[in-house]
Amino acid sequence: MMLVNGEYQTHIEVADRGFQYGDGLFETITVHNGKAVFLQQHLARLTAACQRLRIPVPSPDTLRAEIDQLCQNTEQAVLKIIITRGSGGRGYRQPDDISPTRVLSLHPFPNYPDNYAREGITARFCSTRLGLNPTLAGMKHLNRLEQVLARAEWQDDTIQEGIMLDINDCVIEGTMSNLFYSKNQQLYTAALTQSGIAGIIRAMIISHEFVIEHNFNQAELLAADELFVCNSVIGIWPIKQLASHTFTIGNKTKYLQHWLTQRAIHDD
Amino acid sequence: MMLVNGEYQTHIEVADRGFQYGDGLFETITVHNGKAVFLQQHLARLTAACQRLRIPVPSPDTLRAEIDQLCQNTEQAVLKIIITRGSGGRGYRQPDDISPTRVLSLHPFPNYPDNYAREGITARFCSTRLGLNPTLAGMKHLNRLEQVLARAEWQDDTIQEGIMLDINDCVIEGTMSNLFYSKNQQLYTAALTQSGIAGIIRAMIISHEFVIEHNFNQAELLAADELFVCNSVIGIWPIKQLASHTFTIGNKTKYLQHWLTQRAIHDD
Repeated sequence: MMLVNGEYQTHIEVADRGFQYGDGLFETITVHNGKAVFLQQHLARLTAACQRLRIPVPSPDTLRAEIDQLCQNTEQAVLKIIITRGSGGRGYRQPDDISPTRVLSLHPFPNYPDNYAREGITARFCSTRLGLNPTLAGMKHLNRLEQVLARAEWQDDTIQEGIMLDINDCVIEGTMSNLFYSKNQQLYTAALTQSGIAGIIRAMIISHEFVIEHNFNQAELLAADELFVCNSVIGIWPIKQLASHTFTIGNKTKYLQHWLTQRAIHDD
Repeated sequence: MMLVNGEYQTHIEVADRGFQYGDGLFETITVHNGKAVFLQQHLARLTAACQRLRIPVPSPDTLRAEIDQLCQNTEQAVLKIIITRGSGGRGYRQPDDISPTRVLSLHPFPNYPDNYAREGITARFCSTRLGLNPTLAGMKHLNRLEQVLARAEWQDDTIQEGIMLDINDCVIEGTMSNLFYSKNQQLYTAALTQSGIAGIIRAMIISHEFVIEHNFNQAELLAADELFVCNSVIGIWPIKQLASHTFTIGNKTKYLQHWLTQRAIHDD
């Protein structure tokens, strides 16, 4: 089920700059009991990305009304919002008057087994590297070939996530998640100044706990006490195995899982 | 006028991975007297990009038949071919069976004044930098936000092209063209190992003349004897002014313009 600029449609114009150039951005949101979870944070990030790309910011009231319309009878689902610069312009040059395209679509919630969160997941290192581009770093824009190519590296369903390095051998994030590690009770994550997507859950953890954002390599990661990945759909998954290294699920991870669940329940 | 998978349509599925992730590639081709110019070169590059992205290569016979259907009565136009990985998959993960999407669209030929080719153009340096990513470098893929942001830097119609540097201050290319310079009768262009789009005309010039592909900075470029940009639609445009530097149109550039025109006339 989806809405394109407020109408029930399943297609967009070929001329849409989202299709022509990936000229846009998106949000992926958990829907629970008819409600978009952490919607305020998602809309704030969507607004910031529109401003960075100089796409006119869609009305939050319109977005909220359309989200209600789409999600009101939904128990559990994933809501995806795509905003593009719309159609028009000649080549890369954008038109003088921009009419952004707004697509809201509802998808089945992935049937991840409960034990991913409880007992941890298995991850691998991807050989596809993230490029360096400070202009685009952190944004959830529509240029996502790096993630597509990284996710295509494995078919083995016993592996739940791939960890990506940048071309300088710095560890950055998962193909669909942000990555944290804990060492001697201190939390660390990648700084995302040159690549990566700055996720909502990552930002909430950083607001809640003292996290050191820095550059680190594979050896530093593998020497960690605890590892976990996070995003808006999975919440927090501990990593129990990465390459040939095993990890136990520590107190930091368990505490943050509990904290995030409470935040989601009391989100309004 | 356009064909989507062989049918006259103007829309594609929202679920198409070209729209969702920029998961695809494109070609931009000049049509002259009903014929796609340098089609063999374009189809070879399209095939190579499909192979790099592991998208099944569309049948060349189908493509040629659809190009004929679309272009047969066209005097002068631009043909754009977009190939995407099609719809499906969950998130970045692609489906097991890929049905690529094939979009051919015909656009009015831009009404560039004749004197751009004869007397040269004015160019500027863009402040938007190209990121570094060897995995994607050279390909004409659909992740083109860098070019969109660079082209949005100027509105002044007396400036015809913007020259882009990468994040290491190397000069790479124009927003829509490849860039060559000549110094002491030797031709140079950027190596495109970490960024940039390897154009058809660039490749033809490199096959025809001895060109040094290397890294160079703004100072080296501005000390050149001759400068020009090229692509499949504009052919070769000399640069007469870049930033505050002026250049004369030299024999190398004039020779290559003549050579390229002859190649286009006798292309078959």
